[in-house]
Order: sequence, then C-alpha cells, then structure tokens
Amino acid sequence: MDNPLHSRMVFRVSAQNMQQDQDILAEETPVALVYNGISHVVLMATPQDLPQLARGFSLSEGIVARSSEIYDIEVHSVCDGIEVRLEIAAARFAALKERRRHLSGRTGCGLCGIDSLAAVRPAAQTVTRCGTLNPIDIQTTLLEFDRHQPLREQAGSVHAAAWVSGGKILAAFEDVGRHNALDKLIGCGSGKAWNWQQGFALISSRASYEMVAKAAAAGIGCIVAVSAPTALAVRLAENAGITLIGFARANKFTVYTHPQFIEAV
Amino acid sequence: MDNPLHSRMVFRVSAQNMQQDQDILAEETPVALVYNGISHVVLMATPQDLPQLARGFSLSEGIVARSSEIYDIEVHSVCDGIEVRLEIAAARFAALKERRRHLSGRTGCGLCGIDSLAAVRPAAQTVTRCGTLNPIDIQTTLLEFDRHQPLREQAGSVHAAAWVSGGKILAAFEDVGRHNALDKLIGCGSGKAWNWQQGFALISSRASYEMVAKAAAAGIGCIVAVSAPTALAVRLAENAGITLIGFARANKFTVYTHPQFIEAV
Repeated sequence: MDNPLHSRMVFRVSAQNMQQDQDILAEETPVALVYNGISHVVLMATPQDLPQLARGFSLSEGIVARSSEIYDIEVHSVCDGIEVRLEIAAARFAALKERRRHLSGRTGCGLCGIDSLAAVRPAAQTVTRCGTLNPIDIQTTLLEFDRHQPLREQAGSVHAAAWVSGGKILAAFEDVGRHNALDKLIGCGSGKAWNWQQGFALISSRASYEMVAKAAAAGIGCIVAVSAPTALAVRLAENAGITLIGFARANKFTVYTHPQFIEAV
Repeated sequence: MDNPLHSRMVFRVSAQNMQQDQDILAEETPVALVYNGISHVVLMATPQDLPQLARGFSLSEGIVARSSEIYDIEVHSVCDGIEVRLEIAAARFAALKERRRHLSGRTGCGLCGIDSLAAVRPAAQTVTRCGTLNPIDIQTTLLEFDRHQPLREQAGSVHAAAWVSGGKILAAFEDVGRHNALDKLIGCGSGKAWNWQQGFALISSRASYEMVAKAAAAGIGCIVAVSAPTALAVRLAENAGITLIGFARANKFTVYTHPQFIEAV
C-alpha cells in the first residue's frame, strides 16, 4: 500500500541564506469507498489503516448500523488512488441505493452529500453516558498522546484521534483529515470490546460539527479536543448528551457541555 | 445576519479547582448556495462575508468562469441556517444542471460532489506567474497577519486567508473552514484590480490538496502557508506552476515548489 510519508528536496530560506534540504511530507491520497461494486464517495486521506477508515465511515455516516453488516473489506491500489471495496448487507445496500436515488442529480460539499439545509443532520441520537471522567486521566494521556503520533512527528500536517479508557490510550490513528482520524478510531473500536460510553475520544484538532456528529453516531459519550470547539459543535454535543471538552492541556481544560460527568478535583 | 461569535458559560478545570467562566466560541453555520433557485451545496461556514464566500466558491469550483457571470447575490436567514441565493448566467446554470445530471444518483464527500477516483480533478490549469517574491514581504506580513484575525483572537478555532501585494495585506478573511477563508478571499479579489500572478495568498493553516486546487482555479501564483503542505498539494502546485511555501515564520520558511520566483536573500 502507499507510504503515508513522502520525501522531497526543498529550500529552507532564512534571513541569512537559502539552502537545499530534505523534507518529509504527509501523503494525501484519494480513497474511493466502493459498496457492493458501486463507487460511493472519495475521501482525501492518509493511506494507512484504510479498512478501519472504511468501517468507521460506514458506521459514523449511517451506511451500516453495526459493524457485522460489513461482510468484507478489500483495499486495492488503482491508478488514480486507492479503492476500498466493501461488501455490505443487502438491506443496507438497498438503503444506500435509495438514499442515492433520493439525492438524484445533486452534489454535496462540506457535509456528506448534503445539498440543502433541510437535509443537515439534526441532533443525533442521545448518547447514554455511564461512568465519570477523572481529570487526571486527561493530563496523563495528553503526555502520552504525542508518542502515538509518529506521522506528525516526522511530517506535521496530520491530526490524531485516540480512545482512552481506564486512564490509558488503547489505540490512536493519524490522518491528514481530522474526521478521517476519528473514523479510523471508530472503525477500530467497533471490532473491540470498548465501551464508548465510558472513557473518551482524545482528538488533536478542533471539535467542529462533523466531529461531534460522527461521535454521536458511534455512541461516544465524551470528546476531549486539544483545540477549540465551534458553537454548533457545542450545541450538538449538548443535545446529544456528549461531554465536550476543549483546549485540553496537561494542567487544565475547559468543559463545554455536561460537566456533571467530570469528577471533582 | 448571524453573529460570527457566540458567548457561553463553561467550566475551567485546573489541577486546583473547577470554576465557571464565560467563553467565546466561533459560530459554525450551515450555508446553502442556491443557484437560480436550485439549492446546490451546503457549506459549514463562519456566517460573515457570505457574498464573498459564494462568489469565491463559484469561481474556485468552476461553476462560473468569471465574476461577471454572477448577476446577483442575496443573503437570507432561514430557519435551518443561511441561504445565499445567486443569479448566474443562463449558460453557466445550464452547465451546472448538466453537471448535476451527470452526477445523478451520487453523493460526494471530501471533494465537492466527487464519488469516483476518475472524477478527482487532474492538475489544474497552469498559472503563469509574473513577478518575484521578496522574503522580507513574508516576514513583515506575518507580523501583521495576527492583527487581521479578530475572530481567532477572541474564539480560536478559525483560519484566515489574506492577499499580500507590494509587501502589504490588502484584505484578510476568517472562517472555521480553511477552504472557506480562501474562497472568501478569492471572491473579494475577483471584484478588485488585484493581479493574482503577483503577490501571494497567505493562509494560517496547512496547505492541503483542495487549497492548492482552489488557488490554481483562481490563477493565484503563490501560496504561503503557516503550517505544512501535504505531498499531494505539493505535486499539484508543481504541476500548476504555483510557488508553494510552508512553515512560514517571521525569520524563516520552506519553499516546496518553483523556488525560481523567490528573490535571493
């Protein structure tokens, strides 16, 4: 499969001089998701962990309701990028075709295949959160988070999403798209015994609308973002019952919604 | 029109305590672009400078070939968000309908309405760059750039795009989406006597594929990004004749493509 990193000669310019140097860049590859033979969508993504990306996207965008409705995932390099071919349950494929028929003659941008305001997803299902969040877990896992971002260490320009439970990072994924990193995490977790309602998703990026929407669709009860949330993301988290934390630092953070799940310091 | 900022009570948690505080968030609003009465696309955007956003998107996505093909732009608040209603030339609207008919039964994500790898835009038109770039201009305008980002100053979580010519920032736009900030800049510049082939677009974000694709469509000859580019963005810039600069700091930067336009230091 494609290498997620790419080496290139560049020029470093400073006040003193301009010299050639070797630079390492994050790869960004068009990845087509093909369901039961029909190409449905192209994501610009980091070409690693693509089965997890395809599984997570299928879940967080509601193409399947549960992981077991995906029977097979194959990754193929093709001339223009990468195809991930999924075999999904017949009923889900029929629903996808119906959704596509309904979108007939339309195109989408910014949100997946959405072309009118009425189709913007309303507040997702409410997540029933169980278990509280110990502030110490945020502090300790933030220090650990850097070690789970080897692409960022080498190339910059990638985001990461990790699942934290019991004060430990159980898995972390990187991608040039923050929503792809979260989808990879959701795809990975769907095959494991993780309880999305305990623990939290730690994301290196901002928390925007689609991040909270994907978390809500997966049933994730708490999101901890290193950067700021948007106002719409906060409203969605509030409605969906998700504890949304932003500006997470080693010694402090800000709680935007549902603070009742944070243990007293 | 909607306020781009939103105030909210939050909890600040530190190692010592947890206290209520007022926080300012960047708004993120669904903005539908409606062409000649047909809703075409929904962008998640910061609700300011929306005529510029609509004009820039129309140009950078090739819905119109020039600004004069847009006859009218009206912004309307509706219950689910904001509609920007554009009146475009009949020939362009016919082409848009044809494009939509061609996309029949498809949906897109990550790229505008693209659902198969074959449809990923190839190297855009080549930009004929004239004029060189003085490294001093990057240094001086980076210092000035912060002053053009009032939303970021107050709320964080927004990106900015500025047009720099003659060592000065002529205009700057902010948005929760980096591509929207660039589209606002392109929309603004299309009505002015700016020469996209001299000067540079200064962006506060990473340079990913769609940023370079939009710049190429607008004819912008040089992009200076504060953060890293992706490998695909670099390849596109190389093919499109665009000088792509990353990791721009007050005293240094990295040139990824077409360094021949950088003046010797």
